[in-house]
Amino acid sequence: MKNTAVLLLSTPMPLARKGVVAAISEFLVAHNGSLLHSDDHLDSGRDLFLSRLEWDLEGFDIPISDFDHYFKPLAEPFHIKYHLALTDYRPKVAILVSAYQHCLADLLFRHSTGELACDIVMIISNHPTAKPMADFYRVPFHLLTNPKDKRESEREMLELLGQDVDLIVLARYMQILGPHFVAQYLLRMINIHHSFLPAFIGAKPYHQAFERGVKLIGATSHYVTTALDEGPIIEQDVVRVSHRDTVEDMVGKGRDLERIVLSRAVRWHLENRILVYQNKTVVFV
Amino acid sequence: MKNTAVLLLSTPMPLARKGVVAAISEFLVAHNGSLLHSDDHLDSGRDLFLSRLEWDLEGFDIPISDFDHYFKPLAEPFHIKYHLALTDYRPKVAILVSAYQHCLADLLFRHSTGELACDIVMIISNHPTAKPMADFYRVPFHLLTNPKDKRESEREMLELLGQDVDLIVLARYMQILGPHFVAQYLLRMINIHHSFLPAFIGAKPYHQAFERGVKLIGATSHYVTTALDEGPIIEQDVVRVSHRDTVEDMVGKGRDLERIVLSRAVRWHLENRILVYQNKTVVFV
Amino acid sequence: MKNTAVLLLSTPMPLARKGVVAAISEFLVAHNGSLLHSDDHLDSGRDLFLSRLEWDLEGFDIPISDFDHYFKPLAEPFHIKYHLALTDYRPKVAILVSAYQHCLADLLFRHSTGELACDIVMIISNHPTAKPMADFYRVPFHLLTNPKDKRESEREMLELLGQDVDLIVLARYMQILGPHFVAQYLLRMINIHHSFLPAFIGAKPYHQAFERGVKLIGATSHYVTTALDEGPIIEQDVVRVSHRDTVEDMVGKGRDLERIVLSRAVRWHLENRILVYQNKTVVFV
Amino acid sequence: MKNTAVLLLSTPMPLARKGVVAAISEFLVAHNGSLLHSDDHLDSGRDLFLSRLEWDLEGFDIPISDFDHYFKPLAEPFHIKYHLALTDYRPKVAILVSAYQHCLADLLFRHSTGELACDIVMIISNHPTAKPMADFYRVPFHLLTNPKDKRESEREMLELLGQDVDLIVLARYMQILGPHFVAQYLLRMINIHHSFLPAFIGAKPYHQAFERGVKLIGATSHYVTTALDEGPIIEQDVVRVSHRDTVEDMVGKGRDLERIVLSRAVRWHLENRILVYQNKTVVFV
Repeated sequence: MKNTAVLLLSTPMPLARKGVVAAISEFLVAHNGSLLHSDDHLDSGRDLFLSRLEWDLEGFDIPISDFDHYFKPLAEPFHIKYHLALTDYRPKVAILVSAYQHCLADLLFRHSTGELACDIVMIISNHPTAKPMADFYRVPFHLLTNPKDKRESEREMLELLGQDVDLIVLARYMQILGPHFVAQYLLRMINIHHSFLPAFIGAKPYHQAFERGVKLIGATSHYVTTALDEGPIIEQDVVRVSHRDTVEDMVGKGRDLERIVLSRAVRWHLENRILVYQNKTVVFV
Repeated sequence: MKNTAVLLLSTPMPLARKGVVAAISEFLVAHNGSLLHSDDHLDSGRDLFLSRLEWDLEGFDIPISDFDHYFKPLAEPFHIKYHLALTDYRPKVAILVSAYQHCLADLLFRHSTGELACDIVMIISNHPTAKPMADFYRVPFHLLTNPKDKRESEREMLELLGQDVDLIVLARYMQILGPHFVAQYLLRMINIHHSFLPAFIGAKPYHQAFERGVKLIGATSHYVTTALDEGPIIEQDVVRVSHRDTVEDMVGKGRDLERIVLSRAVRWHLENRILVYQNKTVVFV
Repeated sequence: MKNTAVLLLSTPMPLARKGVVAAISEFLVAHNGSLLHSDDHLDSGRDLFLSRLEWDLEGFDIPISDFDHYFKPLAEPFHIKYHLALTDYRPKVAILVSAYQHCLADLLFRHSTGELACDIVMIISNHPTAKPMADFYRVPFHLLTNPKDKRESEREMLELLGQDVDLIVLARYMQILGPHFVAQYLLRMINIHHSFLPAFIGAKPYHQAFERGVKLIGATSHYVTTALDEGPIIEQDVVRVSHRDTVEDMVGKGRDLERIVLSRAVRWHLENRILVYQNKTVVFV
Repeated sequence: MKNTAVLLLSTPMPLARKGVVAAISEFLVAHNGSLLHSDDHLDSGRDLFLSRLEWDLEGFDIPISDFDHYFKPLAEPFHIKYHLALTDYRPKVAILVSAYQHCLADLLFRHSTGELACDIVMIISNHPTAKPMADFYRVPFHLLTNPKDKRESEREMLELLGQDVDLIVLARYMQILGPHFVAQYLLRMINIHHSFLPAFIGAKPYHQAFERGVKLIGATSHYVTTALDEGPIIEQDVVRVSHRDTVEDMVGKGRDLERIVLSRAVRWHLENRILVYQNKTVVFV
């Protein structure tokens, strides 16, 4: 188990130029924090400096619960916005799923091999199909009481989720979530859309792709916002199709894409690699 | 030089089942036409049988100018629609280009190596920049007299093109062509659009892609129809981008895509590999 | 359930030119066999004509058990070698696996969704790890009695496999099989090798790839022959890596490749799409 | 024109942990050097810290010719090895080419559009074919006097190259260069090999790939060392092939790969993005 801290930060460029890297580096050295990785990005259009830093907590002489107290005097003059994460913390993840289980099966298997550093604390579904899979991987499974009633279902889900869930993964959950629900998990809820967004927004994207005669189909993982399929994109990938592929073939090829694209997004989120600003992501990989 | 014939055909499936493959195969054998390649496709949604056949003309005992006379009795009962092409015919190609020359340079170089079996008979442009390149490859270059006047320019182009041009390639020609012009070259005019259609239709697609924060950018070659960027798609490809790519980087990466995607489309058209129906293409490769 | 027949055949080109396509097409029409798909390939270097034909058995007037009797008079003058398969036959598949379960989990999940048209009749392993997964999917699991003794283990496996297994899938089975065993399942045993063959033959290919500093890693599925990692290649794919990827990262990325590449190969084999000749495959997709 | 400095450096990890990032950042701030980009990599296997830093020279108060004098006191205690480059310096590049011109045409066109920030000072060839292309782009062309005599040709080339050439690009130069020549341009000579190395080392890789029946072909750009095709790999890419591709088709597809892979390597070298150690590259992109 790694015992490191990750700091994701942004600061306006004119201030950053005045030595923000030096200031933070000195801060870490002064407190005996051995820097393991740093990656930064300069968005010149928006005049923002964005950075991800990871350092070893072995020997770091600030109690992590007091980090803000020590870091604020440095952060304020540079107008730094930051988020601190500890890599030995295992985020609590809930998975929402409908009838299709390929993304769920994939996430659960990856989790079982240690690829996803989190605790999957529950699976919620509007269909009973995923129950045996949940049981096999020993994850509590909740079937929604009244899945046809969207409002009631969202209320039930919020109750089940409680206060402790850090991340919701929509593993082909085929219901559009209302703004109240979305607001509770802003930038903490990842969806997989089965098209290369922004092409084929909305329902039945493989059918749309087939009708249009495209030569590649795609999948997109993104944070959920209230604008349908328009949240910040985390990852995308495509696969080649031809006239020989029926809609069903596309669905089959798409399943492989969806699993991989969703699992990458979830892993990067869990590894604190994603910084979101102005509806776009920077993924530090 | 190959001396072969290519037949592209479609026929309603219920008729096709009654032995269309056998009938055509027998026809070829009877006339001493040695079949080199056959490829077919069954579109079950539209109940159509589509096929591409290529045979050796060496020994084929029908004069090719009389082909219709001999083939019609076979074609009619099956309601076959067909197009016959001779591979030793070199199509006459005109290239339209604006200021960006990367696609033009690519097509001309490929042509010089023998990769594109056609005669490039003229280059027409609304900018003088491509003239030296045209001269180097010894292709007549026409600068439009009054490029700001779209109507007049299209009239001038039609005059320059005359009656003999088989294919127009829009190698980053940055003007939208009017319906009258388009109608003259329906399914005989190939465009390269610098996005993964149907995402980012219209102007400045790389800027749109940058704003949206997509993780892949693409290029699409398609036949031009009167509906902007909505003609039958011939080929598409994508390349990965990240937050590190500026709009200018995307433009640069896109150039490589555009060249490859356009040249594939042109080659397949020249090799009579493309069958269009209902705004979609079947590419027999 | 489709009720069709697939014929995979090869014939020397000089004979094929004399109307083999016409002869077979006529044969099908004469016996009321409605052709659904045909795909062919001409290997000009080896002067061979290769073809895959699929037709509807509904109404086909030859009892399939007598097919040879009817087809031989046609096949012999053309020196046709052929293999007939019925799509409603579900091949019996055995999976061999060691400690890594990602390929096994993937195959079993795909099978459960109907993507692989076969019966998985047993899993054999030299490790107990896969037993719970086998139980979940209700596939009999056999742990080798004495896994250290290769000779004895192969004897035990041959006994377990019996006479009815049509295909063996080596889903990361980490033992080299002896020539006697291989000979029993020639062109009926598919392996996944975790490199882009022929690069990095043998053990620890990801370590070899890391040491060499390659920018892409790959996976290869192939039929097993007695020459290690040199059997006919069915499918390959690659993924990009960089200096940021440790050997462990490569192993993780490779797992996704291995699953996809192996499952494609297995599906194509089950769908009778693969024709092998001279240590190469033609995959009719 | 950017007016920036790039520093590529490596330092042993145990020393780096003691604040090398902070020390360098402070150094830049102290001398009014505004950091634009930094990217680093920790090779834990070799216990090395590698970094690329780029800063604005506008206002930097150290005369660049005296950089070593000011930086050494910092570098020495950390055992930093470094290379400083100025982005407004245009490296002098020589291209060696044989009969195939696709890579040459590509490099010259990219150079003409400003994509490659260098001066192409000469083209040397053992064939006269490239002369018109060289003339068109106004690059001096040298035909080797006695191309059959390898030893004499290498002597002639060294004389032509003189002392000022910073980089040699082997744009499909089909001669193996001797150790004496290679030694003069170690890590300053980039080759394109038409295979996915280490598969298909040596001559006729496409023929080897065709014989082996691989499903993807590749291209590899690498620095030339005395071990044939074994120098540090800079970039690789692949494209899918099938049984339908003849050796000639592979050669054609490969041309597109070679152009792109070689041009990426050359651009990254010119942009000082490549750090080589222990026969591997880190490419900071």
